[in-house]
Amino acid sequence: MQNTPKEWSLIQMIRYRVQRQNEHTVVPLGDDAFVFKNFPGYSVICQDMMVEDIHFKLDYASAFDLGHKALSVNLSDIAAMGAQPHFAQVSLALPEKINESWLDDFYKGMSTLGDEYQCEVVGGDLSATQDKLVIDVSMHGSVEKPLTRKGVQSGDLLLSSGPLGLSHTGLLALTKKKDGYEEAKKKHLRPLPRLDLVSGLQERHNKVHALMDCSDGLINDALQLCPHPLGLHIFAENLPIHADTSKMSLDLGIPVEEFALWGGEDFELLLAISPDDYDIFPGWHLVGQYTESPGVFLTHADGKKEITEFKGWRHF
Amino acid sequence: MQNTPKEWSLIQMIRYRVQRQNEHTVVPLGDDAFVFKNFPGYSVICQDMMVEDIHFKLDYASAFDLGHKALSVNLSDIAAMGAQPHFAQVSLALPEKINESWLDDFYKGMSTLGDEYQCEVVGGDLSATQDKLVIDVSMHGSVEKPLTRKGVQSGDLLLSSGPLGLSHTGLLALTKKKDGYEEAKKKHLRPLPRLDLVSGLQERHNKVHALMDCSDGLINDALQLCPHPLGLHIFAENLPIHADTSKMSLDLGIPVEEFALWGGEDFELLLAISPDDYDIFPGWHLVGQYTESPGVFLTHADGKKEITEFKGWRHF
Repeated sequence: MQNTPKEWSLIQMIRYRVQRQNEHTVVPLGDDAFVFKNFPGYSVICQDMMVEDIHFKLDYASAFDLGHKALSVNLSDIAAMGAQPHFAQVSLALPEKINESWLDDFYKGMSTLGDEYQCEVVGGDLSATQDKLVIDVSMHGSVEKPLTRKGVQSGDLLLSSGPLGLSHTGLLALTKKKDGYEEAKKKHLRPLPRLDLVSGLQERHNKVHALMDCSDGLINDALQLCPHPLGLHIFAENLPIHADTSKMSLDLGIPVEEFALWGGEDFELLLAISPDDYDIFPGWHLVGQYTESPGVFLTHADGKKEITEFKGWRHF
Repeated sequence: MQNTPKEWSLIQMIRYRVQRQNEHTVVPLGDDAFVFKNFPGYSVICQDMMVEDIHFKLDYASAFDLGHKALSVNLSDIAAMGAQPHFAQVSLALPEKINESWLDDFYKGMSTLGDEYQCEVVGGDLSATQDKLVIDVSMHGSVEKPLTRKGVQSGDLLLSSGPLGLSHTGLLALTKKKDGYEEAKKKHLRPLPRLDLVSGLQERHNKVHALMDCSDGLINDALQLCPHPLGLHIFAENLPIHADTSKMSLDLGIPVEEFALWGGEDFELLLAISPDDYDIFPGWHLVGQYTESPGVFLTHADGKKEITEFKGWRHF
């Protein structure tokens, strides 16, 4: 769109910050579009937006944090397909309060994380805006055997790759300005995509019934995997809860399972498998089971409780 | 990111509006990411953002217009690489004033234009925002022989594929609420990407020294093609000016060439070729020539005038 001299100088600074040697590059950053040699397998694309005062506040999230996180949430989508990331583009709508030093730190956050996963920032756009900072990242990856959300069968176990509710714990610690809770804050501000699990999942890809990343809370996401008219039992005592979450639960008097059931942005992977294959996924946490009978239940040792307040959502 | 029940219902509506039968689709819209079979040649990616009250105002641009234009500016970048478009993703930051019917029209605008060029909307994101509407589109295309911005030589002619300044004419007509100027308004609100020219350019690709789309005004864009330390002469009498622009020029008392030199968003293609090849590009308008001696000049029949006010920009 319309470039200004100020935008050109920013683009130059950004190019210096993000550009890498890459044998797949055919036409680098700085032309009308970026051109690259395809990778083996299929292409995988996704796009995720973060908006100031909806997804983050600038008083607790640094520029580096936001660069890291905007890339990470897309890397997580790539991981959730069992894929590998390659290229990212980022568009920013920038209010006047954002200066060049902030931007440099933002791209440092993006490219530092990107370098860990061989994902290069190769394009995007900059615009002024009169109000809220908006960050929108698209990503290109590749995969030979996509691991999708479809394929859950009755009786399947639901596993999580890590603690649930920890990011929400961090968000509460940040917004309530609580000392401590360092791991929770880090999980919220700089989540790591579970790309470390992709090769292991691909080795057992015919055992993976369904896979997704957990960004909207366990219940909401697990229902995305749930084919109509199956039901879901969540095992309350099994939920993987981090010590910071237990502490926050006591501190605020909120039941600890609420964090795991409804807290978003953990970016752990959720995996559905046959009970027969439970042994071949060590390190994963058993959090639930899909059932023949419909309904969503939280099961404790002493009984089960139906979760009903979201039922209307099932229409969508 | 965090989905809400309202967002899920919107996503369902959008899916109905945009999804197409496509033999390249492997994992459709609705998973963590979209997966597709690669096209022959290289991949081409770009991303362009439009922000309310920076790029458009909602009082003159309809939802359909904005859907059309947000796709079109990306299609134009694909055309400017000599490429073919395939897939688009769109992220929207939505203020409360935007309702479902507006959104439906927006996606209708996108997919109506997309259908003309076999470009399907396959993903993206939705977020609330407290204030300004933000639209960010990324696009995936393919090309066997990329046509880049690099390659201009001294003496090369600069050609434009169509009228320059017409979009700016339309913008003035819209913001000043002038009757008439229908073609100018249409050019501004619903520009068409010059994908119609791509196959012709590819047939003569070894004659194309450089190619880009004209989005920031002729001078700014032509300088993007200009290798240091070459100069540029713009031929004032040759500038392709639409009748609406001439009329606006008289109406407002602004020299007509100002529209072409500085008005943005025409999304015509700018092409640099050897003077020897001028005859094999019929239909293109000769607008300038790159010169051995540096400096940017506007040449008239009665002399030339140096354009100096942007000189500082050359640093970037």
